[in-house]
Amino acid sequence: MRVTVSRKAHFNAAHRLFRKEWTDAKNLEVFGKCSNPNYHGHNYELIVSVTGEIDSDTGFVIDLKTLKNIIKREIEDPFDHKNLNIEVLEFKNLNPTTENIAVVIYNKIKPQLKSSLELEVTLYETARNFVTYSGD
Amino acid sequence: MRVTVSRKAHFNAAHRLFRKEWTDAKNLEVFGKCSNPNYHGHNYELIVSVTGEIDSDTGFVIDLKTLKNIIKREIEDPFDHKNLNIEVLEFKNLNPTTENIAVVIYNKIKPQLKSSLELEVTLYETARNFVTYSGD
Amino acid sequence: MRVTVSRKAHFNAAHRLFRKEWTDAKNLEVFGKCSNPNYHGHNYELIVSVTGEIDSDTGFVIDLKTLKNIIKREIEDPFDHKNLNIEVLEFKNLNPTTENIAVVIYNKIKPQLKSSLELEVTLYETARNFVTYSGD
Amino acid sequence: MRVTVSRKAHFNAAHRLFRKEWTDAKNLEVFGKCSNPNYHGHNYELIVSVTGEIDSDTGFVIDLKTLKNIIKREIEDPFDHKNLNIEVLEFKNLNPTTENIAVVIYNKIKPQLKSSLELEVTLYETARNFVTYSGD
Amino acid sequence: MRVTVSRKAHFNAAHRLFRKEWTDAKNLEVFGKCSNPNYHGHNYELIVSVTGEIDSDTGFVIDLKTLKNIIKREIEDPFDHKNLNIEVLEFKNLNPTTENIAVVIYNKIKPQLKSSLELEVTLYETARNFVTYSGD
Amino acid sequence: MRVTVSRKAHFNAAHRLFRKEWTDAKNLEVFGKCSNPNYHGHNYELIVSVTGEIDSDTGFVIDLKTLKNIIKREIEDPFDHKNLNIEVLEFKNLNPTTENIAVVIYNKIKPQLKSSLELEVTLYETARNFVTYSGD
Repeated sequence: MRVTVSRKAHFNAAHRLFRKEWTDAKNLEVFGKCSNPNYHGHNYELIVSVTGEIDSDTGFVIDLKTLKNIIKREIEDPFDHKNLNIEVLEFKNLNPTTENIAVVIYNKIKPQLKSSLELEVTLYETARNFVTYSGD
Repeated sequence: MRVTVSRKAHFNAAHRLFRKEWTDAKNLEVFGKCSNPNYHGHNYELIVSVTGEIDSDTGFVIDLKTLKNIIKREIEDPFDHKNLNIEVLEFKNLNPTTENIAVVIYNKIKPQLKSSLELEVTLYETARNFVTYSGD
Repeated sequence: MRVTVSRKAHFNAAHRLFRKEWTDAKNLEVFGKCSNPNYHGHNYELIVSVTGEIDSDTGFVIDLKTLKNIIKREIEDPFDHKNLNIEVLEFKNLNPTTENIAVVIYNKIKPQLKSSLELEVTLYETARNFVTYSGD
Repeated sequence: MRVTVSRKAHFNAAHRLFRKEWTDAKNLEVFGKCSNPNYHGHNYELIVSVTGEIDSDTGFVIDLKTLKNIIKREIEDPFDHKNLNIEVLEFKNLNPTTENIAVVIYNKIKPQLKSSLELEVTLYETARNFVTYSGD
Repeated sequence: MRVTVSRKAHFNAAHRLFRKEWTDAKNLEVFGKCSNPNYHGHNYELIVSVTGEIDSDTGFVIDLKTLKNIIKREIEDPFDHKNLNIEVLEFKNLNPTTENIAVVIYNKIKPQLKSSLELEVTLYETARNFVTYSGD
Repeated sequence: MRVTVSRKAHFNAAHRLFRKEWTDAKNLEVFGKCSNPNYHGHNYELIVSVTGEIDSDTGFVIDLKTLKNIIKREIEDPFDHKNLNIEVLEFKNLNPTTENIAVVIYNKIKPQLKSSLELEVTLYETARNFVTYSGD
């Protein structure tokens, strides 16, 4: 019996869409107002979904206190109230699109989980735009 | 790295559940108040989900401005503030159930996307009833 | 101790903005696509708020079962899955704008409540547009 | 054309996380405040998703009135305003974690559906924690 | 310039509607399934709204960290994952209707605020039922 | 008959809580992580509520197209995808707390409305924190 357990979390951050390899004009052309050099920001809403067998002792796939702590340590503490481009190492050379942020979050959480557990990450940049990544 | 990018949209429309091949009595028997000959209506909420590789140049699976424009041209402009049964060609001979509307939306958007991209359409008829179709 | 108790309800209906006294051209000019002669529709979300003293016996301002039944009988049964312009008496000669619908709902519910209770009606036409009326 | 139709429902219940085989101290150690012997409770939000072919006569995968009645009879009537540990037979010897409740709900609904239909159950214990099970 | 600042919080609790002065039969007659002797429960969502002048130094009506701490200490810690009837002193002799819980919350938070600040408490028992109290 | 009509809008912006008159240490002490010199950001959700008489010709308090255009021109165009501290004139010398942003929004919209109309502004900085201002 494989069950998926999901936990919501959130962080508020500034960012801009920007490739160092491109001129400002090229960044503006491709990314429009999302490339504003003074940054803009979002309330990112995150859903972390873990799939695995139900432990017959506890009735849990994963203890949500454990999962909550992983999300806090790996994502909320380093990302919340930060400027993603300047202050989060993973985006020093990676454009912080919602797609790329979701992949980074996946790659930070996956090694914290037992290898038998599958992971899927859904990241809302706004209430209208969101991205899902499951490591494929 | 295959990632799914989703965009929400909405349109408000009138409709009735109705098969031309059936008598009014038969329509009423099967579809109940949803078959009211004077129509009723909904705020349809639409989630369009596109799956593909992240472009290493842009960090996008698909530019959301592009996706937004496709949804506007193919769905919002022809469906919003319309009577689906009377004014939308696809439902002239097709009962506008949520299932059928979702399939029609899929079939209108899919050809607008690069063939390497997969598509899934989720359509909320109300906050309590919704349908998902991914072309299978 | 005056407390306000609120109950959410909903109905799905077709309507068009339309004044009989005006020509079709005038209706179109003022109301735009909302005046589509073939109708469009909405999932109306309704919040009915009743203010009064807490009854010291029951701990209730009003029994929510009572309020639920009033809303069902006065609003949901006559409005749900209906065409407001054609099938709801109150809009035979009254343009069914969200403002006017909210006032009609207020006027139908108020006489069903004990006179010591105050009433406020909030009506969402869409998730983005809503109206509040409290009898002033 | 396989389409998924989803219906939301809800029930309010008390529960505690508790294994009879364990001492109170062990239950407290593993389940923390969720094991409070006096119980706590939740507004459980349930999404029942049914996947199958669209019936060419009705345009439905399943008539939502039918699905609504199944959910009412199998889940809402026996679970709503109940103490899951004491009053719901299935949890007499099964710890009512969200995972286990979702599996129980799946097992109660699945036999009520035609065998050609697939089922997925999503159960929100809170707005932040939820579980999905599809019989695998 | 008087501005209202609102903070959302939540707690999960068991309760039953019950008056000690009444027989079980009378409780059942008045409160129906809400009076189940084995309890049921809810995810209570709380909005605490504080009105006052903007402090010209900080730009705050009240520092939200301060308000968050007051809500945690006065409401979340004593109410969350508890049985309101058994474990919360204020309901030993007071029926825990949503109305009465909102008044208790108001009376616990008000003395923690500077006297120049007004308070309003909104408490959702479910997504469909909620109560507002502002000390009048 | 005075009715309140509300319209939701949104903008995404970067900001930091910061008073020029204070040292960095003092800003950090008072505003904590909200004072991050590299900025953070939010999806601001805005509700603009206009109260007045229903026009007997149109059935409107205010045409929502008019209100939508005012919000776009006065708020969304100058605030969206901007850094409030750097790029929005009103916050050059005013700390962009949610309280102050709500007052600025009020002051920009009020002169665009007929003087007989009352205005209330509700601004969500996050789903959990929001502010209301009505000009008192």
